[in-house]
Amino acid sequence: MAQNDDNQLKKIAGHAKEYGFIFQSSEIYDGLSAAYDYGQNGVELKNNIKQYWWKAMVQMNENIVGIDSSIFMHPTTWKASGHVDAFNDPMIDNKDSKKRYRADVLVEEYLDKIEAKITKEVEKAEKRFGDAFDKEQFLATNPNVLRNKEKIDEISQRLGNSLETENLADVKALIEELGIADPVSGSKNWTDVRQFNLMFSTEMGSVAEGANKIYLRPETAQGIFVNFLNVQKSGRMKVPFGIAQIGKAFRNEIIARQFIFRMREFEQMEMQFFVKPGEELTWYETWKEKRMKWHKTLGLGDENYRFHDHINLAHYANAAADIQFNFPMGFKELEGIHSRTDFDLKAHEEYSGKKLQFFDTVDNESFVPYVVETSIGLDRMFLAVLSAAYTEETLEDGSERTVLKIPAALAPYQVAILPLLKKEDSGLPQKARAILADLQFDFNCQYDEKDAIGKRYRRQDAIGTPYCVTVDHQTLEDNTVTIRDRDDLSQIRISVEELKSKLTEVTSINNLLRKL
Amino acid sequence: MAQNDDNQLKKIAGHAKEYGFIFQSSEIYDGLSAAYDYGQNGVELKNNIKQYWWKAMVQMNENIVGIDSSIFMHPTTWKASGHVDAFNDPMIDNKDSKKRYRADVLVEEYLDKIEAKITKEVEKAEKRFGDAFDKEQFLATNPNVLRNKEKIDEISQRLGNSLETENLADVKALIEELGIADPVSGSKNWTDVRQFNLMFSTEMGSVAEGANKIYLRPETAQGIFVNFLNVQKSGRMKVPFGIAQIGKAFRNEIIARQFIFRMREFEQMEMQFFVKPGEELTWYETWKEKRMKWHKTLGLGDENYRFHDHINLAHYANAAADIQFNFPMGFKELEGIHSRTDFDLKAHEEYSGKKLQFFDTVDNESFVPYVVETSIGLDRMFLAVLSAAYTEETLEDGSERTVLKIPAALAPYQVAILPLLKKEDSGLPQKARAILADLQFDFNCQYDEKDAIGKRYRRQDAIGTPYCVTVDHQTLEDNTVTIRDRDDLSQIRISVEELKSKLTEVTSINNLLRKL
Repeated sequence: MAQNDDNQLKKIAGHAKEYGFIFQSSEIYDGLSAAYDYGQNGVELKNNIKQYWWKAMVQMNENIVGIDSSIFMHPTTWKASGHVDAFNDPMIDNKDSKKRYRADVLVEEYLDKIEAKITKEVEKAEKRFGDAFDKEQFLATNPNVLRNKEKIDEISQRLGNSLETENLADVKALIEELGIADPVSGSKNWTDVRQFNLMFSTEMGSVAEGANKIYLRPETAQGIFVNFLNVQKSGRMKVPFGIAQIGKAFRNEIIARQFIFRMREFEQMEMQFFVKPGEELTWYETWKEKRMKWHKTLGLGDENYRFHDHINLAHYANAAADIQFNFPMGFKELEGIHSRTDFDLKAHEEYSGKKLQFFDTVDNESFVPYVVETSIGLDRMFLAVLSAAYTEETLEDGSERTVLKIPAALAPYQVAILPLLKKEDSGLPQKARAILADLQFDFNCQYDEKDAIGKRYRRQDAIGTPYCVTVDHQTLEDNTVTIRDRDDLSQIRISVEELKSKLTEVTSINNLLRKL
Repeated sequence: MAQNDDNQLKKIAGHAKEYGFIFQSSEIYDGLSAAYDYGQNGVELKNNIKQYWWKAMVQMNENIVGIDSSIFMHPTTWKASGHVDAFNDPMIDNKDSKKRYRADVLVEEYLDKIEAKITKEVEKAEKRFGDAFDKEQFLATNPNVLRNKEKIDEISQRLGNSLETENLADVKALIEELGIADPVSGSKNWTDVRQFNLMFSTEMGSVAEGANKIYLRPETAQGIFVNFLNVQKSGRMKVPFGIAQIGKAFRNEIIARQFIFRMREFEQMEMQFFVKPGEELTWYETWKEKRMKWHKTLGLGDENYRFHDHINLAHYANAAADIQFNFPMGFKELEGIHSRTDFDLKAHEEYSGKKLQFFDTVDNESFVPYVVETSIGLDRMFLAVLSAAYTEETLEDGSERTVLKIPAALAPYQVAILPLLKKEDSGLPQKARAILADLQFDFNCQYDEKDAIGKRYRRQDAIGTPYCVTVDHQTLEDNTVTIRDRDDLSQIRISVEELKSKLTEVTSINNLLRKL
């Protein structure tokens, strides 16, 4: 199972590299770990995802506006937000291998192994009993399963408690009691568990003017909070209103992995919605629904999404849920919706000595607004689209193709213009280029005249171009072209004059927006 | 003169803050020096500038594609590019004030003062001689002027030589000989001049896995160079072709100033064009022209642009020019066009041990391409648009207005929908909202029903909205509205059905693209 998922992710990463979606950062220097570059097709897909989000959140909502705050912020920001003191991961070093691990991840991997034992037990029984097998009953009664389940519960509870109370000595004790060994060296010679702050720091300015230790922001949200009053006043906004932002954030993850799912440099699309205290839980439910609808409207399959409500809430939240997506690695967090209370604005009031309040002219009172946040990882969204789109198919004629069934409005190119023949004297390239010259104002177009038409269709399939326009001899006679549909392979013939309106009809991002 | 320019920049910065274009970063913590945030209107203008560039460079050019590489890169990248060893500014500290300065800037400011003396001399003579004054002749003959000019030449030549040969002791000697004092304290008690590397560094990973000192990229160009082969191969590109990128870069400027003109965190729009060796100077001229046309097409005034050819070329260039813009501080660099030779690709070949060559199937030979770069500061472009657009006017009725005459295709909002009356029972707000609901898919729209219509026009003027659509009683009768033009204040009456096509006609970014 895990083996297969891993393979699927590797396949997608391989395809993403081969077709210019994602390259390892600084690959010629053997790569920089957990950093990736978006290639010529990747950047277009990424920009289209951004646009879908921005239009849906900012352009279509009268009471939501955007900002673009800088990555560098005053260091006190991160004192107020709690990141300086509490944005830590517990780490442990193996004294023999000199490798460093997240202590909690070591324990979780141990739990995964017990989980795998249960799965194996089930599979064995399934084989033995065949159709008569009742899985539910087996799980509820088999003594081996029950013992293992109890073990999992016990360990995860103890780990959770120790982390919450910052009892790091007990986390180490747990690792030793379970006999967890370094996965690389097999050694059990561990250091103590220590906290490791995940923020990257650097020095700004030169010594003489007073160099400051500053941080690369670990989240974009605080750039919105410190600008709350600036935006509210200059934009004459009234609560409830939202501020949206797309931007880079940085976390020095001890172990970053799973392709672009967890990177040290990543991009967020966050919206902070400021509401009247007491109304936050209603808005929290509203935004949970709205965001789920945004995702499902893309058509990647409703069954690939689910909510995961947080049981243990962060110190600043009074309600929180993830929207999980069915990645090749299983259901994982794609977006978070948090009811953040007035924690952040209050903290910034305290540290800055400035009032961050809204004066309600109706009730004639001032208050610190409560905040409902929607926060989505842009790179994860990219991976969600890519992995749902990646399809290997056998066609009717027995040939195979790899096709990216990317929603048409998000595809790197909306259309490819293909003259049937490359020869100038056929007149087809000239005609194809004339069509290109007209369409390229409104669509991102490919032009390809190399190789047989079938081979060119395969290339467009591989980068997810939803429509191919083929210019053939008939085009020169009656000014019509064929449009080929990437997914169902159907071809229709339409006049060149209709091309623009037809392509708009089937590729416009407005098709998505109208469904929201 | 300098006083006025400073005032103009301050006015623009004040307006930018008041109307949600630009806020000082972390303002509630008294700001972070040389970092700014883009507010709700600023982010829209900035996104539109990005789009105009991206569409003009990538979408409209078959042989240019984009990428989006990460800010973090393998540290050897910056060894190869020369930034680790040579990306320095000469700095000097005043021992009494403890202030730090760029040594070259201290000397340049001294030269500015001599220049000011010449200007004063000219103005005096102009007054004395009136219409009979021959400026050219005066400059060529007046002994005071000649003496000062000679002094300027002598000093700048010596400074240039000393910097080029890294003779920092002589830069200090020059400062002392000229008797330059600390502008803050008046003290002449200086330290030696030292080199100060402008790259921000941070530590990636945790100690046990081998922490790396890495840098925040000081330019986006190297992200393109290290991906040259990835893009060329996966995109099947043939020389000549280009790779374009928009992204953040970081420089730890000793003195950052002039609003968003020189920031420590800034954004670049760069395109590297790979050509056959020997053809680079022809392409250099082509790109100089193309880029100038891109600027002038915006209509900010042709007289506001000029080329400034570099006399002293950087070590990697064989030709270089700036496109300068007439900022409130005078003509300054807005964009650079460099013929970078094969310096970067060759250096990366050497440091990585990988071949970075293109195989030309026509001539049957491999070569390292030469590179022509176009590099524009996005924030500077923003400032250029803002400062050219900022206008204080007295209208025919004697009232005054501040209006941002931003090109319609770049304006934060293309249109504002204004019901003449706010009262629900007038039926006007409902009608206005119905129009809004239809237009907001295709345009970024404002809706405003507060205050008298004249006051609302002023608000839209101040944020640069090119068109206001007013819904009045006649609208309910015959389904027509008025469209008011921001610049000439003309109003025409058109039917609601025509609104979308009319607004597309006057605000579409395609209007600009078609002129290129």
